[in-house]
Amino acid sequence: MLMTHILAELYECPDVIHDAQALAEAAKSAAQSVGATIVGEYEVRYVPHGLTIAIFLGESHIVLTTWPEYRLLLVDILLCNPQMDPRKVVDQIQAQICPDGQMAVHEMPRRIAAQP
Amino acid sequence: MLMTHILAELYECPDVIHDAQALAEAAKSAAQSVGATIVGEYEVRYVPHGLTIAIFLGESHIVLTTWPEYRLLLVDILLCNPQMDPRKVVDQIQAQICPDGQMAVHEMPRRIAAQP
Repeated sequence: MLMTHILAELYECPDVIHDAQALAEAAKSAAQSVGATIVGEYEVRYVPHGLTIAIFLGESHIVLTTWPEYRLLLVDILLCNPQMDPRKVVDQIQAQICPDGQMAVHEMPRRIAAQP
Repeated sequence: MLMTHILAELYECPDVIHDAQALAEAAKSAAQSVGATIVGEYEVRYVPHGLTIAIFLGESHIVLTTWPEYRLLLVDILLCNPQMDPRKVVDQIQAQICPDGQMAVHEMPRRIAAQP
């Protein structure tokens, strides 16, 4: 069985990447839209700026990391349910947070069992 | 500037993957060994089993997700400091948690700025 882990870079993001609540809401609504269940949340604020927002799911996690001096948002999505499409989740996060920026998406297949 | 994000699958893990404290300690000691700073920690316990352990760092995060029915540990490491080698971190996690298992490591370059 394969899952797809998504890593994405969103460039040229607007000032909303300073807004922890907006980032968390974007990740949570995107996760819920594919049927994922939210089970927890954690926030780190860096000095002088920058955030890590982790949304914990019944199906694993979404982690958003901002690098404001580059107007960059890093996205990390693992959904341990092959019926849920992580590409839809990252597309929704982009639409909500960085609709006019550029996005690079890396889709990494992850094999669950050593022997397929 | 490039960073390297590491995703890894550790197969054929022993029963220690049921031990949240052992997983957290392995991730934290591996992070500290490359000079990373631990700033937080979060744990999710799934029913009937399975764990997500997130270690938050001054340099972003390590997330461990277990899938006990497959004796699988999924590792996710982002260090936002190119001087710190995430490969050393995953190697140490393997050595501590799953020394006799198989490991598949995916190294994903992540570009910080839209224009290099």
